[in-house]
Amino acid sequence: VNLGQSSLAASRSIEPEGALTDATVTCCQLSPVIGDAAHNRELSLHAIADAATAGSDLIVLPELVTSGYCFESADESQRLAITRQDPIFDEWAAAAGSAIVVGGFPEIDRGALYNSAVLIEPEGGRTWYRKTHLWDAEKEVFTAGDRPPPIVDTKLGRLALLVCYDLEFPELTRNLALAGADLFVVPANWPLLGPIPAGEHAGEVVIAMATARMNHVFVACCDRSGTERGQAWTEGSAIVSADGWVVAEADGHAVISAVLDLESARNKRITKRNDAFLDRRPELYQG
Amino acid sequence: VNLGQSSLAASRSIEPEGALTDATVTCCQLSPVIGDAAHNRELSLHAIADAATAGSDLIVLPELVTSGYCFESADESQRLAITRQDPIFDEWAAAAGSAIVVGGFPEIDRGALYNSAVLIEPEGGRTWYRKTHLWDAEKEVFTAGDRPPPIVDTKLGRLALLVCYDLEFPELTRNLALAGADLFVVPANWPLLGPIPAGEHAGEVVIAMATARMNHVFVACCDRSGTERGQAWTEGSAIVSADGWVVAEADGHAVISAVLDLESARNKRITKRNDAFLDRRPELYQG
Repeated sequence: VNLGQSSLAASRSIEPEGALTDATVTCCQLSPVIGDAAHNRELSLHAIADAATAGSDLIVLPELVTSGYCFESADESQRLAITRQDPIFDEWAAAAGSAIVVGGFPEIDRGALYNSAVLIEPEGGRTWYRKTHLWDAEKEVFTAGDRPPPIVDTKLGRLALLVCYDLEFPELTRNLALAGADLFVVPANWPLLGPIPAGEHAGEVVIAMATARMNHVFVACCDRSGTERGQAWTEGSAIVSADGWVVAEADGHAVISAVLDLESARNKRITKRNDAFLDRRPELYQG
Repeated sequence: VNLGQSSLAASRSIEPEGALTDATVTCCQLSPVIGDAAHNRELSLHAIADAATAGSDLIVLPELVTSGYCFESADESQRLAITRQDPIFDEWAAAAGSAIVVGGFPEIDRGALYNSAVLIEPEGGRTWYRKTHLWDAEKEVFTAGDRPPPIVDTKLGRLALLVCYDLEFPELTRNLALAGADLFVVPANWPLLGPIPAGEHAGEVVIAMATARMNHVFVACCDRSGTERGQAWTEGSAIVSADGWVVAEADGHAVISAVLDLESARNKRITKRNDAFLDRRPELYQG
């Protein structure tokens, strides 16, 4: 179910507390090989099956995991793009068993390419999203999506589906939180742009932490690993709690998991007299 | 000069590059004593004079530095509140010499109390701000301000004046950045709410870092130190660069400084094809 804000507002007032159970969330920081779709298919299927066997309820794969990221030509990106009817999505669903699976792929539709992600529910629901904020050379290859990230009301909780750079727009993430998202699910490829100061998280993780803390939502970012055509990645996949602390973080090639009480994201209370949402002063935010 | 957005948009297109020189910014993480106005006056004047002598261009004091924070009664807060005509502001200006000084105080105006801050320019300009997002027991004492944080176009650059919890509202900080702020100046009292995980910055600093990075603005937060009526503080004053890294951070009772190229905040370019502001998709942020 892809909810709009009005239906969420209505549902919020009637939904019983204690409706959600803890969810095990897994980010599979894989290392796809650019252009080798067969290899990447095997890689993703094994990762999903392993996580499902380990009891994961939500399995997150990186952005563009079916293809790799650093296309060297328009021809290459066209050749690696797939449609929503591609059999890999049925294979992902089968490998996931009763878990939800999320991953990124280059989508082709009527001649246009999109940097897309899908959220596949075991009950059959599939929610598609086309990245709306394109990073660097993506602008030469992809068309930006024209619909904001969806919020999917799943058995685990309300999952917002973003891709990578989308997370760096605070007005977007605030809106998704206000619309009721419990967890931001973020397939990513975080290019390593410059040195990360000693002792610090990657800048993208800092943004995930602050986004979680300011909105009291959970965030699960799945980066990729490996060097591709000279491009390194932060390899910084992170799962962040609704109070803004990292509860699981990758270190190189890694699969990370955490058990999250997603329902706790629905209580925005900070202190006896403070609530992250009720303390807002929208009349002062007109710019 | 307190600029509105339209005048900033106009000024931005005509302003010459290289108009600003590097600014030395100092946060004086003092330990005021609740109720002891004479002590706090001396404390603030010495800190300002020391920083000015050391060559600081912008001297930031904590929130409510004239009074302390943890009022035990309405009577006490009334007794410690001062007006904008209080002589301390002339004294601060005199001690600061050619530097700008910013600090917080409990303001009384026509019987109402505000958690206020002032930005004093050596040329005589004074800009006042009443905190718009009140924290916890402040709600029992203060009236929230009804105007958003001002942006002051100073010789150092465009300084936005916020107080503490204001910084945790991403739609507010985004608007201030879009309106042209180069540096967020944030007098604060950050109560220590719970343990900070080992190796992490205080959560408020994480928010400052992400705010800086997402908006490509500088942030200078001046916390306080000492324990007051059982309340400890994070003692985490921090100066953050426009790329989101901490360039100076307090450790206990401390004065911190950094030299900032504030003009660099006006270039929002991230990569060859990315710009933090031009990449926005406002049509998707309607909620």
